[in-house]
Amino acid sequence: MGFSTVSLLGVGLLGGSIGLAIRAAAMDCKIIGYGHRRQSLDAAIESAAIDHAESDPVTAVTEADLIILCTPVGTFGPLLKKIAQAVRPGAIVTDVGSTKRSIVQLGEEILAGKAHFVGSHPMAGSEKRGVEYARADLFVGATCILTPTEQTDPHALRQVREFWQTLRMRCVELSPEDHDRRLADISHLPHALAAALVAMQSDEALPLSGKGFLDTTRIASGDGGLWRDIFYDNADNLRTGFLRLRHQIDEFLQMLDDPQHPDALRHWLDAASLRREALVRQKLRDLPPD
Amino acid sequence: MGFSTVSLLGVGLLGGSIGLAIRAAAMDCKIIGYGHRRQSLDAAIESAAIDHAESDPVTAVTEADLIILCTPVGTFGPLLKKIAQAVRPGAIVTDVGSTKRSIVQLGEEILAGKAHFVGSHPMAGSEKRGVEYARADLFVGATCILTPTEQTDPHALRQVREFWQTLRMRCVELSPEDHDRRLADISHLPHALAAALVAMQSDEALPLSGKGFLDTTRIASGDGGLWRDIFYDNADNLRTGFLRLRHQIDEFLQMLDDPQHPDALRHWLDAASLRREALVRQKLRDLPPD
Repeated sequence: MGFSTVSLLGVGLLGGSIGLAIRAAAMDCKIIGYGHRRQSLDAAIESAAIDHAESDPVTAVTEADLIILCTPVGTFGPLLKKIAQAVRPGAIVTDVGSTKRSIVQLGEEILAGKAHFVGSHPMAGSEKRGVEYARADLFVGATCILTPTEQTDPHALRQVREFWQTLRMRCVELSPEDHDRRLADISHLPHALAAALVAMQSDEALPLSGKGFLDTTRIASGDGGLWRDIFYDNADNLRTGFLRLRHQIDEFLQMLDDPQHPDALRHWLDAASLRREALVRQKLRDLPPD
Repeated sequence: MGFSTVSLLGVGLLGGSIGLAIRAAAMDCKIIGYGHRRQSLDAAIESAAIDHAESDPVTAVTEADLIILCTPVGTFGPLLKKIAQAVRPGAIVTDVGSTKRSIVQLGEEILAGKAHFVGSHPMAGSEKRGVEYARADLFVGATCILTPTEQTDPHALRQVREFWQTLRMRCVELSPEDHDRRLADISHLPHALAAALVAMQSDEALPLSGKGFLDTTRIASGDGGLWRDIFYDNADNLRTGFLRLRHQIDEFLQMLDDPQHPDALRHWLDAASLRREALVRQKLRDLPPD
């Protein structure tokens, strides 16, 4: 691992957790944090998530050999433009964004000839925001999706992969297009659906909710502005995802209207149950030994 | 509490947990358990959830003054017909079913002039089945919905309410119609939706699931046959619930198509987030002191 200075642009839940995880992995490097709120920077210093705080992104990146964009995805464009002239030649820039097509395109265009951009999506997080929820073990055992393109520098890709692996993540590679298509289904659509499920409830039904409803809608407790930007950025895939969900709901309603064939509905429900159980078992197998 | 003998028809997760909770509440009564699987009865005796095991529902109810139907809702009709001639005059019969209109009607019709039927829905459970998952504290702090009708005996209603309160449940009363309407929205529809969300995933997307997806779909890991019966029994309310969900999804997709008004989507998402957070706070306030 050849990084001597890592610059975290954004010191919220993810940026802060990366800082803590770097320390937990005993990586020997200086950690610089940039944020626009003094309070977050102070808290990040206080918790030892970063060594130095900078309120200007340009100053924060000048000596870094690894720069990680940890702000909401909607801010990546302006941020990349600001730092483009200040990055060290050959520096590596990556990110933690939940969408990849537009971000990778922006990164490659804006940094062309200046630094190496590698798209990353560490799939760890929380509905909580802020460095006060940062955890050194947030990434342990979770999946990080790397999204190289034909333009990606192979050495930079390897360095970024090793970085996430040092934080004990399981790395996989997908094209930015495949990433956005799959994440629309497995992450973005469920989030929008959880919000719709809360929105459709009457004031009379809501107090009758049990643990099941609270679990099902947990991800709806995220930040609206942050998720809106993700949804806009992946709107095409979300739309086709909702078409496929609608197809499944229509199938369910048709079976509901057909009590003469009760086995069809039971099989559909059991298939979903078994598929989820198999997924849970797979996830348990994927956990790293402690 | 005047019950000297409680008969639990069905000794799975719910029946077993009622037995353990009766013991934990130090109620002085004999507990008889009926089940059609010898293995479950043995396990229920073993865990002290019941005092006596019966493989015939008729024998199981003859001396009981409180009889609780704890089998899947689809079996209540045949079971009520079997026990109708054997119940003690004036005995109280209640249930733990997730739907109430058809069950209350069945109970009142079949037991008319023989015993008092009071509909109950203790809102506690798990995606797990079987007495081996039974817990003495399953009901603590959870809501029990009682569904009296004009025919309900007031004394029997009070006795049943006090029974669930002794198991530390918070009791509310609703008509069977209001119960089924609200539960369709807050419980049955989310369950069907979780199954649809699993079913729509591609084999490529599924391994990329994170904790959010697993939480969102947890309730899909239930028993297909059991939930199918609930869905059939509440099909009309489920259909109108899905119409309202569809309206919310359409609203979301319209906002997604209109990035010129980004605040609308953010507000919609924030409203869902705030509404859920308020619900979580309310649930925490509802918890009983330990």
